[in-house]
Amino acid sequence: MIFSPLIDNLIEAFCCLPGVGRKSAQRMAFHLLERDRPGAEHLANSLLQAASQVAHCQRCRNLSEQSICHLCLTTSRHSHQLCIVESPADVAAIEQTSSFRGYYFVLMGRLSPLDGVGPEALGMDQLSKRLDEGEVTEVILATNPTVEGEATAHYIANLSKPYQIHVTRIAHGVPLGGELEYIDGGTLAHAFTGRMAMED
Amino acid sequence: MIFSPLIDNLIEAFCCLPGVGRKSAQRMAFHLLERDRPGAEHLANSLLQAASQVAHCQRCRNLSEQSICHLCLTTSRHSHQLCIVESPADVAAIEQTSSFRGYYFVLMGRLSPLDGVGPEALGMDQLSKRLDEGEVTEVILATNPTVEGEATAHYIANLSKPYQIHVTRIAHGVPLGGELEYIDGGTLAHAFTGRMAMED
Repeated sequence: MIFSPLIDNLIEAFCCLPGVGRKSAQRMAFHLLERDRPGAEHLANSLLQAASQVAHCQRCRNLSEQSICHLCLTTSRHSHQLCIVESPADVAAIEQTSSFRGYYFVLMGRLSPLDGVGPEALGMDQLSKRLDEGEVTEVILATNPTVEGEATAHYIANLSKPYQIHVTRIAHGVPLGGELEYIDGGTLAHAFTGRMAMED
Repeated sequence: MIFSPLIDNLIEAFCCLPGVGRKSAQRMAFHLLERDRPGAEHLANSLLQAASQVAHCQRCRNLSEQSICHLCLTTSRHSHQLCIVESPADVAAIEQTSSFRGYYFVLMGRLSPLDGVGPEALGMDQLSKRLDEGEVTEVILATNPTVEGEATAHYIANLSKPYQIHVTRIAHGVPLGGELEYIDGGTLAHAFTGRMAMED
């Protein structure tokens, strides 16, 4: 044992963070203990508060400590557009672009029968109820372009059929600044299938 | 504002960790909230406990929640050797090699007059007292080979003179597995100055 028990314990606790191995955990622990104890306490209290109070928005299932999150409470957004994403991080990524002004529905996962994740776990009944309300006229599927993400998108497309809603999928193709030479074949094939008329 | 206040607060708190930017902080926050709430609470409690209880060993100044750390309490080590390092992380690095079996003295910094770090802040009086005890016959200077680290080493070498103690500095040179071609000039010059007779 090189460290005292409390320090050892702290290093081991930091290892539960994604992308943090034993060496980074040690660096974090020493940094806080040597130079930033108020920061350590602030982090601890933020963790305790968030872990106990943050739940899911009852309308969009996003993480929030309010029963209805502030995005769902915003009245100035376009209520006829509903964007379906897998996770809160996806909402953040889309919001940062300011390119979408409708509402979100967060699945908190993707269909994955092997892991026992079925439609119930993703709140599909809640989504049906949302579509029942009749306000949504376009569902934008923004699940990840992985096997499970595509399967989830197809499932929701089927689920939306009875409502005669316009169902769209975000475009997949060559990213801006990407070079054709280095793009994988699947993406390139997608880019050809999804080609659009050149605007003048 | 994209996230709810508590989540925003947590992300901002994670940013105080070394090497963690806004994007990693967000990833950590979502990971804990979506998948590992017990881990979040464990981390919070470890932080609170460590931040309130970990202080400095009265003998070697290393971080420890005990008044005398377990390394100083170990009686099987060689009490005639005292290794001087800058930080607790240095102790950990040396201990992991199992190549040193003496005791440590941790400066918790280095001489840096520009930042107002003088000999008092590094516990030099405590070090003098330790040498006064008369048990130490060799002081091994393992401060970093930076300008401040070298200055600190020289300061301690001077401080040790009255005690007629053998003062040594750890070797600096080409690291194992390193290639001469890619080593910086300063290190290479050091390697020549510090050359040793080849053993048969």
